[in-house]
Amino acid sequence: MTEDEAMRRAIALAARGLGTASPNPVVGCVILDPAGEVVGEGFHAYAGGPHAEIVALGQAGDRARGATAVTTLEPCNHVGRTGPCSRALIEAGVARVIVAVDDPTTEAAGGTEVLRAAGVEVEAGVLRAEATAGNIAWLTAMRRGRPYLTWKYAATLDGRSAAPDRTSRWITSAQARQDVHELRGTVDGIIAGIGTVLADDPQLTVRRPPDGRLAVKQPLRVVVDSHARTPQQARVRDTAAPTWIATTAELGAAADGRIDLHELLAALHARGIRSALLEGGPTLAGAFLAAGLVDRVVGYVAPKLLGAGPTAVLDAGVTTIAEAIEFDLTDVTQIGPDLRLTASLRPKEN
Amino acid sequence: MTEDEAMRRAIALAARGLGTASPNPVVGCVILDPAGEVVGEGFHAYAGGPHAEIVALGQAGDRARGATAVTTLEPCNHVGRTGPCSRALIEAGVARVIVAVDDPTTEAAGGTEVLRAAGVEVEAGVLRAEATAGNIAWLTAMRRGRPYLTWKYAATLDGRSAAPDRTSRWITSAQARQDVHELRGTVDGIIAGIGTVLADDPQLTVRRPPDGRLAVKQPLRVVVDSHARTPQQARVRDTAAPTWIATTAELGAAADGRIDLHELLAALHARGIRSALLEGGPTLAGAFLAAGLVDRVVGYVAPKLLGAGPTAVLDAGVTTIAEAIEFDLTDVTQIGPDLRLTASLRPKEN
Ligand SMILES: NC(=O)c1ccc[n+]([C@@H]2O[C@H](COP(=O)([O-])OP(=O)(O)OC[C@H]3O[C@@H](n4cnc5c(N)ncnc54)[C@H](OP(=O)(O)O)[C@@H]3O)[C@@H](O)[C@H]2O)c1
Ligand SMILES: NC(=O)c1ccc[n+]([C@@H]2O[C@H](COP(=O)([O-])OP(=O)(O)OC[C@H]3O[C@@H](n4cnc5c(N)ncnc54)[C@H](OP(=O)(O)O)[C@@H]3O)[C@@H](O)[C@H]2O)c1
Repeated sequence: MTEDEAMRRAIALAARGLGTASPNPVVGCVILDPAGEVVGEGFHAYAGGPHAEIVALGQAGDRARGATAVTTLEPCNHVGRTGPCSRALIEAGVARVIVAVDDPTTEAAGGTEVLRAAGVEVEAGVLRAEATAGNIAWLTAMRRGRPYLTWKYAATLDGRSAAPDRTSRWITSAQARQDVHELRGTVDGIIAGIGTVLADDPQLTVRRPPDGRLAVKQPLRVVVDSHARTPQQARVRDTAAPTWIATTAELGAAADGRIDLHELLAALHARGIRSALLEGGPTLAGAFLAAGLVDRVVGYVAPKLLGAGPTAVLDAGVTTIAEAIEFDLTDVTQIGPDLRLTASLRPKEN
Repeated sequence: MTEDEAMRRAIALAARGLGTASPNPVVGCVILDPAGEVVGEGFHAYAGGPHAEIVALGQAGDRARGATAVTTLEPCNHVGRTGPCSRALIEAGVARVIVAVDDPTTEAAGGTEVLRAAGVEVEAGVLRAEATAGNIAWLTAMRRGRPYLTWKYAATLDGRSAAPDRTSRWITSAQARQDVHELRGTVDGIIAGIGTVLADDPQLTVRRPPDGRLAVKQPLRVVVDSHARTPQQARVRDTAAPTWIATTAELGAAADGRIDLHELLAALHARGIRSALLEGGPTLAGAFLAAGLVDRVVGYVAPKLLGAGPTAVLDAGVTTIAEAIEFDLTDVTQIGPDLRLTASLRPKEN
């Protein structure tokens, strides 16, 4: 296996930790002996569990001596719940370490320097873009001090999320609805506006096919509810998952008397929420978009036309075409009869 | 080459006639000798030109004797501008004819029977679905007595075709706009509402890169304009292409005093228009959709959000979700930064 192939494999391994590693990053590691044979593999499966490098070194045993460790994130340098990986790599006798992405946190960074000081050859930046994409939620959270936010919507080709009489069952297919459960399973929090809670009484849980049983790990349900109007009997308050009703009484109010969305996300970050899924409705989605807080859009588009009815998003602060909020398509997948479009906020040119 | 491979090749050949064969069908033909060698190929390039079978027989010459002719459409049986193909195949000594789709017209049908009566073995229905899709405009026109209608729109992810201040230059990319010219090049007519003509003064021509020069063949431009409000100076009236301003004075008025869209399409059919592109605006698109006259949708979707502004389609007669106008996605292609979605009207279950 070449070093690039090993890094691709490490990125794929890292992805297995999505949804469970948080609040830690997803990390994958592959150890190659001098002949290019894989002698150890690992990924970071859950917070508190062993780091990817430790798992891979454990598999490699003595064969780590003189080997090359290929890892998606700079090996950590802090004594967290597990010891520093930089030290473990040195002690195992690894000769060379290949890193895709530097650790952006002050506590954990510095692993590369420690390795170099111990005489280990280090190469950084290999397949950086791919590894960054695989760890985008955690990296964004670390850089911005707020969760990586994905806005999910379901709509027709003409952007309607319900018919004029407000009926919307079901705009998208059963397959698309199941895919939403899988998407929910990758995040730490699910956010909805009080308007949606009052109109639809959604449960906002992760359910698994074929019987719809609750997944073991449930994201935190967050209702954006300035004046604490969430009914006591609302399904979002049931015992299926933890819930936070975010009110201005707790968070303080913005100038418009409503919840300050930056404050909301900072509070979620403080709770260890690294990625969140915004599920609407259109008023709240517009407000998050206007505040520049949506990192990614996932749209489930049904090949139908309505010509009238509520739209998936309302007022996002745009008045003229030059102010359109621009994204880059990153994935287009057919889900049953529907289309799932994934797009990332286009970085602003300066 | 197997007979299925030959039919795929014939379907690909047929497609070369799209945009030029009309008002005739597109047809492709491959002639295989008994060893499965291709000895002749042809397609119907333009109305008045030789039929696909005649071109292929011409190439094959004597090698047509005992050969198999693989053709996308039942060989014609009428003496049109060229002689009947059924007779030409018999005279060339072809032993076996494989047909994908039967000819639905009364004048041209019957070729299969003539062939069989002359002792030629005929197999029909091979790759019928693929060949039907390749000739869908002409087949629909023949079955319905009206042009096959494609509604084209350009919009953001949230279904807006302009910002609140009505600016829309440019929602989609230069690549998507060039693709529209290619789409226009495949149809016989381009239809727009008087609202669009008054608002945007579009030229509705086919232009070719890189210099934007006019294509040789220009579709008929059709303005749906009940009360003849198209300005004398409108660009749609220039000399770049033929134009028809359709008025109630000429066509008669529907109950609402506007143009009866069924009448409009019947009149276009009578003029030899087999396929037409509806380019909007939202009022006219809604009316065509409500009348069940849109066969296909081609949407150019820009990965942008506006949250407000005019939508791509208005009132299509839908009030509740069960009435949504349903399509089947047939193609999804990325065009520069944008997405082109193609979807065909879902046949109603009875
Ligand atoms: N198709 C889809 O994907 C989808 C998804 C979800 C919902 N929906 C539909 O959307 C509809 C409900 O949407 P909606 O627009 O009425 O309500 P919403 O967006 O769910 O909630 C809006 C409410 O959130 C509260 N809020 C608090 N702080 C805010 C802030 N900074 N900015 C904006 N809002 C803030 C406000 O109420 P307070 O001031 O009282 O806090 C506001 O009225 C339902 O009909 C539902 O079916 C569709
Ligand atoms: N994004 C896009 O893809 C796109 C494409 C095209 C246009 N547009 C935008 O659309 C806007 C114009 O749209 P619009 O909705 O105002 O006008 P429109 O749809 O272009 O034209 C509507 C007009 O067509 C005439 N008409 C005649 N018979 C009709 C019938 N049976 N049903 C419906 N209409 C009939 C009516 O005027 P009479 O009664 O006087 O005949 C009606 O007002 C412009 O701003 C343009 O920029 C966007």
